[in-house]
Amino acid sequence: MEIVSSNKSFGGWHKRYRHPSRVLDCDMQFAIYLPPQAEQGERLPVLYWLSGLTCTDENFMQKAGAMRLAAELGLVLVTSDTSPRGPEVPGDPEGAWDFGQGAGFYLNATEQPWARHYRMHDYVVDELPTLVEAHFPVSDSRGISGHSMGGHGALVCALRNPGRYRSVSAFAPIANPLDCPWGEKAFSRYLGEDRSRWREWDACALLASAQERLPLLVDQGDADSFLAEQLKPDALRRAAEAAGHPLTLRLQPGYDHSYYFIASFIEDHLRHHAAALGAAS
Amino acid sequence: MEIVSSNKSFGGWHKRYRHPSRVLDCDMQFAIYLPPQAEQGERLPVLYWLSGLTCTDENFMQKAGAMRLAAELGLVLVTSDTSPRGPEVPGDPEGAWDFGQGAGFYLNATEQPWARHYRMHDYVVDELPTLVEAHFPVSDSRGISGHSMGGHGALVCALRNPGRYRSVSAFAPIANPLDCPWGEKAFSRYLGEDRSRWREWDACALLASAQERLPLLVDQGDADSFLAEQLKPDALRRAAEAAGHPLTLRLQPGYDHSYYFIASFIEDHLRHHAAALGAAS
Repeated sequence: MEIVSSNKSFGGWHKRYRHPSRVLDCDMQFAIYLPPQAEQGERLPVLYWLSGLTCTDENFMQKAGAMRLAAELGLVLVTSDTSPRGPEVPGDPEGAWDFGQGAGFYLNATEQPWARHYRMHDYVVDELPTLVEAHFPVSDSRGISGHSMGGHGALVCALRNPGRYRSVSAFAPIANPLDCPWGEKAFSRYLGEDRSRWREWDACALLASAQERLPLLVDQGDADSFLAEQLKPDALRRAAEAAGHPLTLRLQPGYDHSYYFIASFIEDHLRHHAAALGAAS
Repeated sequence: MEIVSSNKSFGGWHKRYRHPSRVLDCDMQFAIYLPPQAEQGERLPVLYWLSGLTCTDENFMQKAGAMRLAAELGLVLVTSDTSPRGPEVPGDPEGAWDFGQGAGFYLNATEQPWARHYRMHDYVVDELPTLVEAHFPVSDSRGISGHSMGGHGALVCALRNPGRYRSVSAFAPIANPLDCPWGEKAFSRYLGEDRSRWREWDACALLASAQERLPLLVDQGDADSFLAEQLKPDALRRAAEAAGHPLTLRLQPGYDHSYYFIASFIEDHLRHHAAALGAAS
């Protein structure tokens, strides 16, 4: 593991690292925010953030305004990249931004040529936390959140892995990818044309058989231009109601899909996670 | 004036506009953050932010985390671009990033071919506020702040224009440009080789004859890689002491030149401005 950069921030440190990923079979970068409490030796709870299409580890750290409160709460933040990267990793054949590099959809691909590298689920759920827990003063008290494709990732990672996370939330998640254009494009390539296998990677489908009643906090802007076609919060609401799963879904009037929306409500999410993770909220 | 984009943020609105600038003889973009109080009809105080080399109106709005507190304080934020822009505007002959487009140094150039477009002082001090005050519910209670080249700009604009601003602050300003490589390169081209004329655009030189005792708040990271060669906070301290000018200069241990540093201390600056501007601090 090699350090890429280091910036003091709100009394703590924002650091970026590069490491060889065994799961993804390529080099990856991630970022970590260590609040000031990390220098006191105690192991701290950690929130994993999954970003949306085209993003890297940088977007959330630069734009969400999360470090101020993380420093106050003693919460570690970790952001991953959104796909495997590098010249050896195949991308979208047409060079589009909604598939391939920058668009890993946090699943394990089964189809060629994607299956070799595109295993973002195992990377963010297992390999990255194992690395983080080995190198930094973090506990196994894990939360997960994300935006758009990363909101889908957060919900799916939590629902597929009972016991792994103590808290989950999402901003404008792609809530029902098996029934929207972004999801259909990605799933048909990564997972193949048999739609029955897509259900393992769809938050709405997973809710029906969830073994754990982890409360979901979801914020969605009602002026989000992707809302009706791609995001489908109503499908999530119906699935949670049908399953009796606790969901707080807040439609935020006037807000769009940008990081200005995320920044406006990140405090509520950080407090939601800190309370469940045992941070000093 | 034409709107470029609009995002709801912390209950208010972040908006970007394009307009023809008479002073700069080209089209310009700026951004404004209107806090929720702007919809109540009252005219609000306004803080102008000047960014550093290579930046546009976007960097501060995306990365400083300022809107949260501006929304609480009822403070309008305005960010300008850092130079005239466009294919008709001459840039650095060698294509460098520290001169020309993205590097207007907030002065009025006297030398050709720069003098036609490079008049950022008159733009940010006069033309832009006149436009903003005509179109938005802002008062003539103005503060000014900035980072690096924009910190230089904030100090110089305030010191040259007594009565124009009620508050001023800076992050890591180029405090003594007539005696550093960035300043020498820019001033020798924009203003010519006669160094006596450079003093009109140097905060340290201007302090000696300041007609107004506007208190200066300056934050500087002590791990800033540009500190000794380009920024020279000690020269600013000596000039303020010699002039008996009130200066609060804080060396922040471990902080660098990035927006993580700005975000860490923006709250103190916003409260400093809000108190002087009569916002609801």
